[in-house]
This record gives sequence, structure tokens and C-alpha cells, in this order.
Amino acid sequence: MTTTYGIGLMSGTSGDGVDAALVDFSGGAVRVVATRFLPYPKKLREEVFRASRPDGPAELICRLNVELGKLFGKAAVALCKQAKVPLKQVEFIGSHGQTIRHQPDGKNGVSSTLQIGEGSEIAAITGRWVVSDFRPADIAAGGCGAPLAPLAHYVLFSDKHEDRVVHNMGGISNITWLPAGAGIGGIAGFDTGPANMPLDMASAHFSKGKRAYDKNGALAMKGTVDKKMYAHCMAHPFFKKKPPKSTGREAFGPLYFAGLLKKFGAVKESDFLRTLAAVAASSAVDQVFSFCKPKRALRWIVCGGGAFNKALLYEIRARLAGRGALTVSSQLGCGEKDIEAVLMAALAYRTLNGLHGNIPKVTGAERTAILGKISIP
Amino acid sequence: MTTTYGIGLMSGTSGDGVDAALVDFSGGAVRVVATRFLPYPKKLREEVFRASRPDGPAELICRLNVELGKLFGKAAVALCKQAKVPLKQVEFIGSHGQTIRHQPDGKNGVSSTLQIGEGSEIAAITGRWVVSDFRPADIAAGGCGAPLAPLAHYVLFSDKHEDRVVHNMGGISNITWLPAGAGIGGIAGFDTGPANMPLDMASAHFSKGKRAYDKNGALAMKGTVDKKMYAHCMAHPFFKKKPPKSTGREAFGPLYFAGLLKKFGAVKESDFLRTLAAVAASSAVDQVFSFCKPKRALRWIVCGGGAFNKALLYEIRARLAGRGALTVSSQLGCGEKDIEAVLMAALAYRTLNGLHGNIPKVTGAERTAILGKISIP
Repeated sequence: MTTTYGIGLMSGTSGDGVDAALVDFSGGAVRVVATRFLPYPKKLREEVFRASRPDGPAELICRLNVELGKLFGKAAVALCKQAKVPLKQVEFIGSHGQTIRHQPDGKNGVSSTLQIGEGSEIAAITGRWVVSDFRPADIAAGGCGAPLAPLAHYVLFSDKHEDRVVHNMGGISNITWLPAGAGIGGIAGFDTGPANMPLDMASAHFSKGKRAYDKNGALAMKGTVDKKMYAHCMAHPFFKKKPPKSTGREAFGPLYFAGLLKKFGAVKESDFLRTLAAVAASSAVDQVFSFCKPKRALRWIVCGGGAFNKALLYEIRARLAGRGALTVSSQLGCGEKDIEAVLMAALAYRTLNGLHGNIPKVTGAERTAILGKISIP
Repeated sequence: MTTTYGIGLMSGTSGDGVDAALVDFSGGAVRVVATRFLPYPKKLREEVFRASRPDGPAELICRLNVELGKLFGKAAVALCKQAKVPLKQVEFIGSHGQTIRHQPDGKNGVSSTLQIGEGSEIAAITGRWVVSDFRPADIAAGGCGAPLAPLAHYVLFSDKHEDRVVHNMGGISNITWLPAGAGIGGIAGFDTGPANMPLDMASAHFSKGKRAYDKNGALAMKGTVDKKMYAHCMAHPFFKKKPPKSTGREAFGPLYFAGLLKKFGAVKESDFLRTLAAVAASSAVDQVFSFCKPKRALRWIVCGGGAFNKALLYEIRARLAGRGALTVSSQLGCGEKDIEAVLMAALAYRTLNGLHGNIPKVTGAERTAILGKISIP
């Protein structure tokens, strides 16, 4: 059987670099062939954060759009070299780009989202067809533009006999509910709130910028939950809001973190981290049980960078407490940090085959939509 | 013969609204069927200008991208209604969007440009295939991303027997050189500098915001050229720079105008306007004669909003002085303000037919490129 190679490119809200995945779609199945991570240089990462603020300057956004496009293109080239697959055997590339703003709340009656990482640059560097910028078409269809990952979760992890939850912990945390044997129409999914975003900010803060994150959650594992801070965090109104819903840096970014510091800056680092881990874990588990209402024990599949954080896993297991079993996604054939890159390849595949990429029940859209914009090299 | 309808949507650097053109491409010819102008509401125009500054805020850019997309979509719908052509008979829409930044100078080694007006929104509103965002692919090919209009000028106005110059006066002025009988490879074209942009700023300034522009150049016609101001303006280094070259609001926008005011704020309004008109006219004519080196009298075809400004036309005629004859584009079948909208339809037609849209000699690109990104409704 001939191969149908596609590449997916993703950078999450944590803004640390590009995840690239080479995926084989032949025969309708989805097989992850190779993956690669290309980190952003430190200066670029800082610029991405600067551009992502409400007042992120147009001049910088304009330039970063091209710089990121070039870097995303290079990630695709490097991935092919590593996998020893010639680029010209790749039929298409799907690219998420870097989210600069996500404003799905309809302020002024307008919902909007802004991803940058110019598709034309990726097409020029790789010589491949590129589908980029998937979220705006869902917004145009009345949705939140997020989450999109449930489609990949469905393709990779749905099971005929077991209720499953896929819990993706990037900067922001989202879950996908995959009831046993359900088709694409049975999927539910939503953002549950913060995951690594405040954790990483805390690491940077307490280490005075020396550590970008708490590796494997080692420091958090040494701490205990601060009850006052935990209660304060768990009272965030987003956790009570009914799905479909999405969130981002606007709600759980620098302003949120500054607020926490002001109130709980005296809490010691390990406890501060452990508390944030407990909040990320509990809020996700609680929301699954209150909004998805599973009727039997489920499989809780963890992915995203947070899947490497032992404190996050410990807190999820503790909160599940017999109501489900925890598995990391790599045990099921797809690396913890590779799923969203695989998603981008899957979305591009669907767009180029005239298939919708959003799941209206998940994003809140009024209808299905063919996502993304096609650049021809 | 069946019709092949396409719609082109354009908003120029003057940021006053959307020009829409319904074009019939059947049989390879380009026939303008109907045109319509949809002005931006005043508040939106102000927001566009605010977003276009170097520090234009990300939050606003994100929202305007969607708002403008909706407005561009509405312009297409209104145009079809006016022309009594059902939208579903339109095969595609080409949209330029609104330029927020144009930074082709390669600062930090990166050339970039940013147009907003979400293609997914236009596709959602119209239900038509949309090609949007044409400039980045030329930049990715090593070009300036501008000017693109020469392609439309070639299609609409090239002549077997006559050397022709098409002079488009929007906020910025650009010219296209069409030597008699030359093919697409014989075209030259470049931005020549400011046209309406400083003129409109002067009108707004002197009228304390009451007039957005000098209608038909009536006030400028009453003035005379201020020699000192004229000499100062004509010394701008951009006029001497060899093509290919492009410019924009960054060079001839608010900062440029503030500098003029500081030096020549005492010049009375009519003289100030007349001087700016003389600068726009002379700089364009001078650059054509020094860079294109025509060997015989030529036809100088004027289009863009500036074609309605009598002072601009007077100054061009004066500067041509027997070396050429002036014609307004409507005398040749395409309205003065409709050409760039027609261009957008022509570029979309080319992209969807796998044809390049840039002219490397004009934009400075290293190669031809298929421009734009395709949104599927």
C-alpha cells in the first residue's frame, strides 16, 4: 500500500517551540511515523509573549508572523531529515501557528482569535501544500474556535468498550469525553482551565528566571497543598461555566498569576507549585464528573507536557479515587506531547478532502466547517 | 457562452471602506460587470488607523480581523444584490483585506506585511470559495509584497501600439509601465511615494477633523505651490531609490505629516494642499522618466481616488509637458477607483487556476508565486 504522508506543526500557549509530527494516513488509519520538537530561541519566546499581550504591538506581530512561519517550515524540514523521508513524499502540511490572542467571548459582539506563523512562508520553504490557521473558520461558524483536539483524540483513542477521557495538559488544560462506542457525534470536550501556564510562571518567578518550569514536577512533589490558596483558586468562575467553553492566556496568564502572587506570594515555592498542580488536576476531574456524567469507571488518558509532571499525575489519581484508571498516552501509541501536532496533520487531511474539522458540540459552533486556509507552493 | 463570475474586494491604505467589483472572466477576457463601495463606519476607520500604528494593540487587531472580514463579506453580498446576480453564480471571491502593517525593508533580516479581514468570515457569509491575503506569498518568495496592481493594469490597459503608464493614486501612489506590445515579462512597476495620504491628513488637520479630504481637489486648485515646502518634500530619499520598491503608511503616514506640519505649519491650507499635489504628481512623473526611460510620447492613464483630484491631474499634465497625454481610466472601460478590486478578482482567478500572481521584476521577488490562501465555505 502506498503511503500518504502529512506533517502537523503545533505550538501551544506555553510558547516554547514547535512540535512536528510526520503522520501516515494511508488506508484511513492514523500512524505516527516520527516526531520532533524545535524549541524557540529564548529571544523569540520573549517576543511571542510580548506580542500576545492585549497591547502586543502591530509592528512585532507583523514581523513574528513571518519569523514563526520560517521556523515552522524549518521544523518540517528537520523532521523529514530525521525520519529519512524526502519532503517531496509529504503530500501536505497542517500548521496551527502560534496563538497571539484568543478572544472567543464576543466582546463588542465579535468573537475572534489570532494565530500567526505565515502559511505562505511554510509553503515556500517546504514546497508543500500548507493548510494553516484552523480556528477562525470555527469562529465564523459561531464557535469558540477551540478546542479542536477532540478530533485527534477521537481518531487516536476512542474505544468500543471503554468510556475514555483524554486530558491534554498544555499551558491550558482541555479534556475530551469519548463514551464507549460513540461516533464523532458522541464526543464532548472543553477547556477546563489552567495547567502548565501558571506552574511555569511560578517556576520562573521563584527561580528569578533561572528555571522555565519544574522538571517532572519534582519540586511540587516535595510540597503540600496550601488550603487557602487552593480554595481561592478553585473558586474561579470558569470552572463552573457550562461547556462548550474555551480559555487562554487572557484568563490564566500574567494577570491571573500576578493576582495569585499578591495574595499568596508568601507561600513557599514547593507548596505554591503543588497547590497549582492540585487545582489543575481537581478542576479537570471535577468538571468531567459534573458535566459528562460518566456512569461507570473510566480510563483517564493523560497527554501534553503536563503528563510528565508527577505532581499533576498524583493529584489526578488522588481525585479519581476509584472512579477511573490513569494511563499516559504513549502507552496507547502516541507520545504525550505529539497529539496536537498529529491533530494539525489530521485537520489538514480533512480540509484537503473536503471534510469538516470542527465538532460543533465541542466548540459551540452552529454548524460543521471546513477549517483552515490553503497555501499553494 | 457561460459566465465565470468572480468578485474582488479591496481596501486601500486610505482605510475608507471596501471597493467591490463583480468581474466576468469568461473567455479569458476581463469584463467589469458592476462595482460598489461600502464605506467603513467612522469608528471602525479610527480603529483601523489605531491598529495600523507600530504599537497597534494585538487585542484590537484580533477583533478587527473578524469585524473587517464580516464587512468585506457584506460588501460582496450587497454588490450581488445591486447587480441582480445571485451569489451562488459567483465562483470565487478574492479579498485583499486591510493593510495593518507593511514592513518590506527586512529589519532584523525579516520582510513582512500584515493584512487583516478574515477570509473564513467572508467564506462563511457568502458561501463562496475565498482567496485572501495575497501579499505574504510574494514576501516569502523574496519580494516586497507590493505592488500587485500591475497585473490588473496589464490585463486591462496594455496596448500593442502605444507605450502606457498606469498611475494609481490611492493613499500611496504607484505606477505601472506597459511598453507597447510587451508581454507580462515587459511590465515594470513600483510605488512612487505619497498621494492622497498626506493630502487627506492635511484636510483633516486644517478643518479640525471636519473634512476627511479635499473634494475634487477644489481647495488645492485655489492654492499655489510653496517652493520651500516643495523642495523639502521632493528631497525625500525614497524618490531616488531604484525600483523595485514599495512604501506605505510607515514612511508617508502620521509621522511624516507631523514632520511637515512642524516645518511648514504656517503655510496656508490651499497652498499646503497644492504643494502636496505637486509633490505627488512630480515625483511620479520624474520617476517614470528616470527609471522607465520611455523613448516616445506615452499615454498616462490615471486611476485611484486621486484621479478625481483636479490639482493632481493639473500638476501631472504640467509635468508631462508634451512628453505624454493624460487619460482617466474610466475612458478605457474601468472606473478610476475600481481597478484594485478588479485586481483582487483577477488574482483569485489566477490562484485557483494554479497561475502565479506576482511579477518578480515588479515586486523584487526571486521567483513567481501563487498568491493568497484559500478558504473553503
